[in-house]
Amino acid sequence: MNIAQETEQEVDSRKRKGKLVSKVITLAHGGGGKAMRDLIDDVFVQAFSNPVLNTLEDQARFHLSDLATEGDRLAMTTDSYVIDPIFFPGGDIGKIAICGTVNDLAVGGAKPLYLTCGMIIEEGMEVNTLRAIVKSMADTAREAGVQIVTGDTKVVEKGSCDKVFINTAGIGVIDKDYHLGADKAQAGDHILVNGYLGDHGAAIMDSRGGMNLSTNIQSDCAPLQGLIQTLLNAAPNTRFIRDATRGGIASVLNEIAEASSCAIQISEQQTPIRQEVIGFCEILGLDPLYLANEGKLVAVVPENEVEAALEAMRGHAFGKDSADIGTILPGGTAGRVHMQTSFGGKRIVDMLIGEQLPRIC
Amino acid sequence: MNIAQETEQEVDSRKRKGKLVSKVITLAHGGGGKAMRDLIDDVFVQAFSNPVLNTLEDQARFHLSDLATEGDRLAMTTDSYVIDPIFFPGGDIGKIAICGTVNDLAVGGAKPLYLTCGMIIEEGMEVNTLRAIVKSMADTAREAGVQIVTGDTKVVEKGSCDKVFINTAGIGVIDKDYHLGADKAQAGDHILVNGYLGDHGAAIMDSRGGMNLSTNIQSDCAPLQGLIQTLLNAAPNTRFIRDATRGGIASVLNEIAEASSCAIQISEQQTPIRQEVIGFCEILGLDPLYLANEGKLVAVVPENEVEAALEAMRGHAFGKDSADIGTILPGGTAGRVHMQTSFGGKRIVDMLIGEQLPRIC
Repeated sequence: MNIAQETEQEVDSRKRKGKLVSKVITLAHGGGGKAMRDLIDDVFVQAFSNPVLNTLEDQARFHLSDLATEGDRLAMTTDSYVIDPIFFPGGDIGKIAICGTVNDLAVGGAKPLYLTCGMIIEEGMEVNTLRAIVKSMADTAREAGVQIVTGDTKVVEKGSCDKVFINTAGIGVIDKDYHLGADKAQAGDHILVNGYLGDHGAAIMDSRGGMNLSTNIQSDCAPLQGLIQTLLNAAPNTRFIRDATRGGIASVLNEIAEASSCAIQISEQQTPIRQEVIGFCEILGLDPLYLANEGKLVAVVPENEVEAALEAMRGHAFGKDSADIGTILPGGTAGRVHMQTSFGGKRIVDMLIGEQLPRIC
Repeated sequence: MNIAQETEQEVDSRKRKGKLVSKVITLAHGGGGKAMRDLIDDVFVQAFSNPVLNTLEDQARFHLSDLATEGDRLAMTTDSYVIDPIFFPGGDIGKIAICGTVNDLAVGGAKPLYLTCGMIIEEGMEVNTLRAIVKSMADTAREAGVQIVTGDTKVVEKGSCDKVFINTAGIGVIDKDYHLGADKAQAGDHILVNGYLGDHGAAIMDSRGGMNLSTNIQSDCAPLQGLIQTLLNAAPNTRFIRDATRGGIASVLNEIAEASSCAIQISEQQTPIRQEVIGFCEILGLDPLYLANEGKLVAVVPENEVEAALEAMRGHAFGKDSADIGTILPGGTAGRVHMQTSFGGKRIVDMLIGEQLPRIC
């Protein structure tokens, strides 16, 4: 947790401007009156500042013709973030609230453009904590090339929510040449991932406290729109991309197998998982294939573009450890995913039944 | 509260389909695995069913050319709903989650089109309660002419949120001829409202229990896109429209006065407030001008279009009691709102300081 303390001058300056001076969020900050407007001006608008947001209307407006050219499609997505703890190794709820929604847009081939931000805050939260989260959102939005254009703030009584929940919804534009879909996977295609799996899930579990395993595992939380663009440029016939969040890579592979009526085989040896994560999972009796990721994607790429895809991905900061972990099988038991183990055996990788860990994102 | 009970046949049919059979929401329903998919299929997709949603991708996609013609603008908005209680006289959290976002789009002149739905559910909620909320969302979306095209479900541990919070974000298209804005209000313009003020705030306060005032006040919760279209057709030079939600009509009037650097005068006698709401406010020492509405708008209309506007609004189901409550003053103390009282006096209507009631929407 890295919360910048305000200097006395900054507090003075805010007081002079007549803006928020309270150090703690109160119910009045969600009441729709002056206190809420001051909070929005002081905390949100300053951090997210952009021409669309700054109009302070209840809606953001943009010209359609600025967004896209003939034949493009609009993509729209939403996610709520309830992660616990709100600050964790490798990120915080603000960073994940931007990355998650940017990635949901980008995996469909969309260029993410505009995000909304809906905050539900527990009465009593320190304003400086909120400020740190909002700064993290602003920094990540800048990195991802998106603007936060409209928002909403609700405050609920102490005990009615756990610290803060954030919803972001986003829109982006899909180039008319991209037609990605899980049903487009074909026998012979390869399954690529952009690096070590399970880091996010392990980092969150470890940071929940109580376990004291004190690993150094960091969340992989990252905005992937740049990597995905790189991948699509190198391998334009990529069939499908999906970020492996809740449910882990196992759930994504099962979705692909089901949608395409194909079987999938992955290799344990080729699947990049850190020794530390494997050890962590062994202690807790978990399977890293089901651990959540927040900066990892699964891509289905036709065989003749695999080499180009891997080379391009490995040249990107978020794809250095990219790997080819398996293939879509010709024939076989449709809809079935299995893994060739390092010992030469075979095991079924089923869809996650039940939950592994609540509030992982 | 009106929760449809499933028949035994319906339960049987669901069991046969292998879908959700649990009667209570568990953490597994937010885990990203099979339980979550079953919940989404069984509760959300069935109710919201439409071609965009049914692809079950993490993003909704639509062709830009289907949305709009040359020169149109896209509008985008979001709101989180944390209202307590979740079922109240005149509506429920599902209905308000659609109306609020539809209205935020419509008041800007946009035709609301697509909504997202992000649910944060407390572990232990009855599935039938969720089903009732989702049905209410589906019914209201149909009434408002919008589609719910993508969503997200999170489940948090019992005690980490209060029953259910819903976020909806929405997009709509603004015709190139509409350029509404609070700054466009001019001296001589009239202030119209579409009916009785304060019903929602009073209904929620009354239903919180403990007060036992047992009024019959119902929330005015309604989707206003049809009424607004009617108004804009009749009075095409309307300057500004805003729904008077948190902070009540007083906050909207102050916003208009500030943005347009004008003074505003309203007449107590002309302002429609139910006797029951006035009585309720007197008992509790509240001012109905600050009570929240969920189906009331304030419109600033040029004098020569007032008659046509009122006639058109009164012909619409949600505008029967529309009234001309005041004017934008020439000169005077810029930014100041005041009310001519029934006794011939004058009082300042300031912006709401602090909160009147938390979790009103």
